[in-house]
Amino acid sequence: MAEPVPISRRPDPDALERVASALGARFGNRFSANSSVREQHGHTLTWTPNQPPDCVVWPHSTAEVAEIARLCAANRVPVIPFGTGTSLEGHVNAPQGGVCIDVSMMKRIVAVHAEDLDCVIEPGVTRKELNEHLRDQGLFFPIDPGADASLGGMASTRASGTNAVRYGTMKDNVLSLTAVTASGEIVRTASRAKKSAAGYDLTRLFVGAEGTLGVITELTLRLHGIPEAIAGGICPFPSVRAACDATILTIQSGLPVARIELLDDVQVKAVNAYSKLDLPERPMLLVEFHGTEAGVKEQSGRFGDIAAEFGGGPFTWATKPEDRTRLWQARHDAYWAALALAPGKRGFATDICVPISRLADCVEETCRDVAETGLLAPIVGHVGDGNFHLNVLCDDQNPDELARTKAFLERLVRRGLSMEGTCTGEHGIGQSKMKYMAEEHSTATLDMMRAIKQALDPLGIMNPGKMVSV
Amino acid sequence: MAEPVPISRRPDPDALERVASALGARFGNRFSANSSVREQHGHTLTWTPNQPPDCVVWPHSTAEVAEIARLCAANRVPVIPFGTGTSLEGHVNAPQGGVCIDVSMMKRIVAVHAEDLDCVIEPGVTRKELNEHLRDQGLFFPIDPGADASLGGMASTRASGTNAVRYGTMKDNVLSLTAVTASGEIVRTASRAKKSAAGYDLTRLFVGAEGTLGVITELTLRLHGIPEAIAGGICPFPSVRAACDATILTIQSGLPVARIELLDDVQVKAVNAYSKLDLPERPMLLVEFHGTEAGVKEQSGRFGDIAAEFGGGPFTWATKPEDRTRLWQARHDAYWAALALAPGKRGFATDICVPISRLADCVEETCRDVAETGLLAPIVGHVGDGNFHLNVLCDDQNPDELARTKAFLERLVRRGLSMEGTCTGEHGIGQSKMKYMAEEHSTATLDMMRAIKQALDPLGIMNPGKMVSV
Repeated sequence: MAEPVPISRRPDPDALERVASALGARFGNRFSANSSVREQHGHTLTWTPNQPPDCVVWPHSTAEVAEIARLCAANRVPVIPFGTGTSLEGHVNAPQGGVCIDVSMMKRIVAVHAEDLDCVIEPGVTRKELNEHLRDQGLFFPIDPGADASLGGMASTRASGTNAVRYGTMKDNVLSLTAVTASGEIVRTASRAKKSAAGYDLTRLFVGAEGTLGVITELTLRLHGIPEAIAGGICPFPSVRAACDATILTIQSGLPVARIELLDDVQVKAVNAYSKLDLPERPMLLVEFHGTEAGVKEQSGRFGDIAAEFGGGPFTWATKPEDRTRLWQARHDAYWAALALAPGKRGFATDICVPISRLADCVEETCRDVAETGLLAPIVGHVGDGNFHLNVLCDDQNPDELARTKAFLERLVRRGLSMEGTCTGEHGIGQSKMKYMAEEHSTATLDMMRAIKQALDPLGIMNPGKMVSV
Repeated sequence: MAEPVPISRRPDPDALERVASALGARFGNRFSANSSVREQHGHTLTWTPNQPPDCVVWPHSTAEVAEIARLCAANRVPVIPFGTGTSLEGHVNAPQGGVCIDVSMMKRIVAVHAEDLDCVIEPGVTRKELNEHLRDQGLFFPIDPGADASLGGMASTRASGTNAVRYGTMKDNVLSLTAVTASGEIVRTASRAKKSAAGYDLTRLFVGAEGTLGVITELTLRLHGIPEAIAGGICPFPSVRAACDATILTIQSGLPVARIELLDDVQVKAVNAYSKLDLPERPMLLVEFHGTEAGVKEQSGRFGDIAAEFGGGPFTWATKPEDRTRLWQARHDAYWAALALAPGKRGFATDICVPISRLADCVEETCRDVAETGLLAPIVGHVGDGNFHLNVLCDDQNPDELARTKAFLERLVRRGLSMEGTCTGEHGIGQSKMKYMAEEHSTATLDMMRAIKQALDPLGIMNPGKMVSV
């Protein structure tokens, strides 16, 4: 749990007052210091306590973001970038107060270069908005975290989702970006060329930096053609291990599966109730294949053979697009479905990622741990990447349950790390996982990250109290 | 052309003497200050003048590299990492002298995790050595610059090659790495998980940093299954534009082509002579498809249709593996074949990369420029990525020809930049393209790169005089 910040870390009250009054005068009704607005912007989907910023401003352009950043830098006031507030690890909290830059009014789709399979957008555009815009041109953007998050936030947290096994993560799908630095400079990281060897990879440095190095104000994204044919469906398995083993063999066989998602039986029950489906309440893989008609038929057949080897089946096809959409919307709503299992409890959502050879062991040990600890914690996973999620449903007013939950979450991370994995595959560090940075990385590695942070944000005002900052 | 370095940038002679004598005592016959050895290590494949290091040392391990780096840091002596010396842009030159760390004795394949499709190797392993080792396990590593380069050097220069259109570049195929920093610390950038959101992407920061931030001493690489079926061959076109237009439509159609390489008619002539082939001496695409038997058949058929639309054909299949190998070896030898066209001339090899929608324009304008300037400059290209290469054959003792060559190369880069491209898709900056960094990137972007360099190498001793260092 994030500790209260020492009062000394708060900005100077006079400086803050100067900044707030200058922003109020400059941005008018695109500025607010209203307490409910502030609380909304310290909002987080999970258990992290709310730490609101001192004020919120809604810029329209990169130039306006730079203006705000310069003002904050001159007064040593923290800056917290905000997209849709769907972070799970406290990324948008303001432990030291400061100015929240809400990019939700930066929603222009600047250009779609269909012929180059890329587009240029502002950071407030959400993934669904972008795909709505692209559909007529036969293009799509594949990265799909559960929430309909802003693409700026998705880049900042190196987001991923159900298609990552085939299309990669935000790391692989941002060609270039524009960011405003801690001192209010405007930096464009790369050209629109598909590849370049001209300098340090600043694009990848900002992707996943969680707003601690600057505010992303424009993105050039790689797009993909909507596949000619899509086939998918559900395949129940006798156990979570069997489903994981089938996943491992699918990946090792080089089958270019587009999506391969695990739901354990608890999650399937939750999804059935929340999304009014009637899936068999057993561990299950949701799979999807993209390609030509002949290609997806061949891939599906091979997957069916693999599943059968591990006792999986019968495979049920979702042949109609609307059935497929309903199924994947249900998958994306897994978080809410889990919460609905235990009204009044909070969701402690977390994710880890391990090399796929360790996936079955890791998930199976985790299931056993959930049972032994007496917790309710549905599991979903982008298992093709070795990445899985738990949503521990916890009454955080019950000290014993809270203590058991926290101890379980620590064991989970350590289990992942002991299997050569990472403490987070896609949710990020934010505030909640800072303590694991020193377990995952060596002192020298963390020192290097801190040296970069210090060099690019010497005043420590860019989204402070997250990732590596102290 | 690289300017002579001011004498003040040379290390203190006493410090250098201390370092050399300590290294000699410590490494014995794995140390040399012999002048021909030194010259070999300032060696470069192209026109950059030779600037040898003061001495060369061959470490066996990460710990030994760290020991050397600490000694150099303590004495403010430059460190130049060296793989196979096949850089085209002067990356291994030592303009300020110093210690060359030759990793060619670090050739262990530490682990192959076939089940996770990854391996852990030392940086001196070359791409062919790795693939030789992997073949029995049905796996391969796809990145293939022309030379049989070391994988450490390939990571450092963000290398690419003929398979990048399908499998990505080194940026996409390094999962994690170990590096020795400028102060001699050992940093591991990431775990073996396929994805992670735990901290800054130090992996991608080192990939393409050209040894200016540290020495890569171990790499965890992504591997791929050798495709069940491979089909490929050659397809001549009536013009370079027609070949480029066919490439553009192939990519835009989402055809998952594994390789699509352009050779202009001059290059085909060169290849025929050098590699004893009898290809039709017209602009030509070499293509390859990877997949299942049915899949590659379908893909090849679609490509044939696209080629025919632009007057391409007849398509000639290389059905036998040995014919395919011969064809691709000839492609990889394009550089040497070009040189053999004009004995006694030097090759001024260069590359640029543009968004694919501009490829046909860019190549066509470049061909016209070559003709108008009266140069001999065969073209090859990884055109699926919008990336192409010229090897200008120039008598550098002829001042007029040299001046025309240099002016042409400048126009080429500016043509690429004016089309939203980059001054190098894969060869890197090294010494030769430093002057273009300020044309490609804004002052703020370059300042950010310099701030990172300064933070991680405050003494400026890591491969100085390259990329962004002054």
